[in-house]
Amino acid sequence: MSDSLIRFKKPPCISSFATVAGRREEEGPLGGRFDIVDSTDRFGKDSWEKSEGEMQRLALERAILKSGIENGDINAVFAGDLLNQCTSSSYGLMSFGIPHFGIYGACSTIAEGLILASVTVSGGIYRKAAAVCSSHYCSAERQFRSPLEYGSQRAPSAQWTVTGSAAFVVSEEETVYEEEKPGEYRVSGCGTGCYITEALPGRIFDSGLTDMTDMGAAMAPAAADTLLRYFAESGREPGDFDIIATGDLGREGSRLLVALTGDRGLELGPRYTDCGTRIYDLSSSDVHSGGSGCACSGLVLAAEFLPRLMSGRIKDILLVATGALMSPASVEQGGTIPGIAHLLHISSEKG
Amino acid sequence: MSDSLIRFKKPPCISSFATVAGRREEEGPLGGRFDIVDSTDRFGKDSWEKSEGEMQRLALERAILKSGIENGDINAVFAGDLLNQCTSSSYGLMSFGIPHFGIYGACSTIAEGLILASVTVSGGIYRKAAAVCSSHYCSAERQFRSPLEYGSQRAPSAQWTVTGSAAFVVSEEETVYEEEKPGEYRVSGCGTGCYITEALPGRIFDSGLTDMTDMGAAMAPAAADTLLRYFAESGREPGDFDIIATGDLGREGSRLLVALTGDRGLELGPRYTDCGTRIYDLSSSDVHSGGSGCACSGLVLAAEFLPRLMSGRIKDILLVATGALMSPASVEQGGTIPGIAHLLHISSEKG
Repeated sequence: MSDSLIRFKKPPCISSFATVAGRREEEGPLGGRFDIVDSTDRFGKDSWEKSEGEMQRLALERAILKSGIENGDINAVFAGDLLNQCTSSSYGLMSFGIPHFGIYGACSTIAEGLILASVTVSGGIYRKAAAVCSSHYCSAERQFRSPLEYGSQRAPSAQWTVTGSAAFVVSEEETVYEEEKPGEYRVSGCGTGCYITEALPGRIFDSGLTDMTDMGAAMAPAAADTLLRYFAESGREPGDFDIIATGDLGREGSRLLVALTGDRGLELGPRYTDCGTRIYDLSSSDVHSGGSGCACSGLVLAAEFLPRLMSGRIKDILLVATGALMSPASVEQGGTIPGIAHLLHISSEKG
Repeated sequence: MSDSLIRFKKPPCISSFATVAGRREEEGPLGGRFDIVDSTDRFGKDSWEKSEGEMQRLALERAILKSGIENGDINAVFAGDLLNQCTSSSYGLMSFGIPHFGIYGACSTIAEGLILASVTVSGGIYRKAAAVCSSHYCSAERQFRSPLEYGSQRAPSAQWTVTGSAAFVVSEEETVYEEEKPGEYRVSGCGTGCYITEALPGRIFDSGLTDMTDMGAAMAPAAADTLLRYFAESGREPGDFDIIATGDLGREGSRLLVALTGDRGLELGPRYTDCGTRIYDLSSSDVHSGGSGCACSGLVLAAEFLPRLMSGRIKDILLVATGALMSPASVEQGGTIPGIAHLLHISSEKG
């Protein structure tokens, strides 16, 4: 196995980002920090699938607005979602006229998109590229489990798909914009001052689990694989980071990850957290094991972690976005639930 | 709109490739040129979905074998297919242990994968990356139309999803391998001598069509958009190419493309062809408008075009792989069928 760690010689920066969220997310611990919220979760559309696409459109539109650029300044967009044939991305983003790379990493999609956007910008292929993801509780339930009208009961280990979308613009460091109005939030210089310095794409990891109501457990081994590879290849230690966050392992999956890495001598320690346990108040909001979905890690990164990095309170984030790569058909045919985990090191320093 | 054309400063080369195909493909004009064929279309598996995943595994395994390398020498794989949640790629390729980027471009997937593999290799991120795609007539019918057992009738403009998989290994030019046994097919030097010199990712183009039995017409405007942008940005002319091939517009869509580009003053001329009209004998094989599916352009590129380039008979190929980005659910909800077309310039010269 050759090294797979990507160390960006010219770390690209996140020049702007934006978030769109639904009612339950706004009522959670991160309430008040999202750019756009619709308490009906509908976003003006007449189907949940269209609502999800509209969230992607709103998120990218707002991210572009914040960075003070125009659609045509973005050379390519990397976008994905959980729906069959990734239709939220295709329908949601087609009005921008930006060259489009469809991606699929299940709930790890935003990290896959940020890695590819960073690769193209760092390599001088593009000046700016965007990464966008979405998920919607109502479309995901219909897709993966059963329509909401059936009123199915949920297992305690089940997670709640996050309704939301996050969009990030990744740029060359040299980019500079001026503030148009004093006091209004505008990016300047490198944008947010958040650099993507390293990335490690995940391998597909199959631990033989088949329980679609316990996907945190199915994804934890993939997260452990990526973290163990990262620390072996990078030479860094968990103590080098202020936050080490998995995407959506939930309460059960997080505990399993800590056990799996601990068994291999990797102590993640108190800096370890899981986005799925941060986006909702697990004690009161009936979400069982926590949040999941492409938007889970996207929203927590954009609404909580990056603002802390920008404020100078923290310096280094390790995000390990996790995804479960099954489909309902594959599980019905007796297939296991393979997992994947893509890693990003985001820092306030260029490394 | 900024320029989106990618001109590779260090054009990566295709160091090896392999194909897997089904019965109908083997009986067509390219019969005898595929590496692996199973006349039952099952590839030893008990569901069509598993058969499709197995084709991806066989194709990548053979491509790696041909290039004389090991799994671990490939730094990343870019893979996709048409099934819900891209499960053929995830299940088919997980045994390799190679870092995995899931992609979705519908039938344009192999071009998207080759672009991203080229970007990472050309930019010095990776030494080798692979691109893999698949489609299977039986799994696609069940996914997008209806199970075969229903015996649905097909419209004259409908296309036939190609059963097959194609895998390509993209490498830095410096790579050199020795022949292990005289007479056995092995790559050496740059591999095949086929360089990927330019790429143009597609934009999502919606022409408002809604007929799922005429997807060539839905995709033709996207192909026209990509070709018009390419010739405007590159400064080249159609006469600079020996082959200009779209992915799977079929008979109707190809005619529409020629009309659409002709109206804009771009005469593609006799060098224009469509992979969907080459993989089957349209006059006798009951495939109506021609082939489609991710494997369509992948198989024709690997089984027909690249061997002609390697033999010195032709020098420059422009491949415009086309995809229709709808899902059955989006169409049932009254959605249109947006198209996308990703372009590659493959040459025997480094540009």
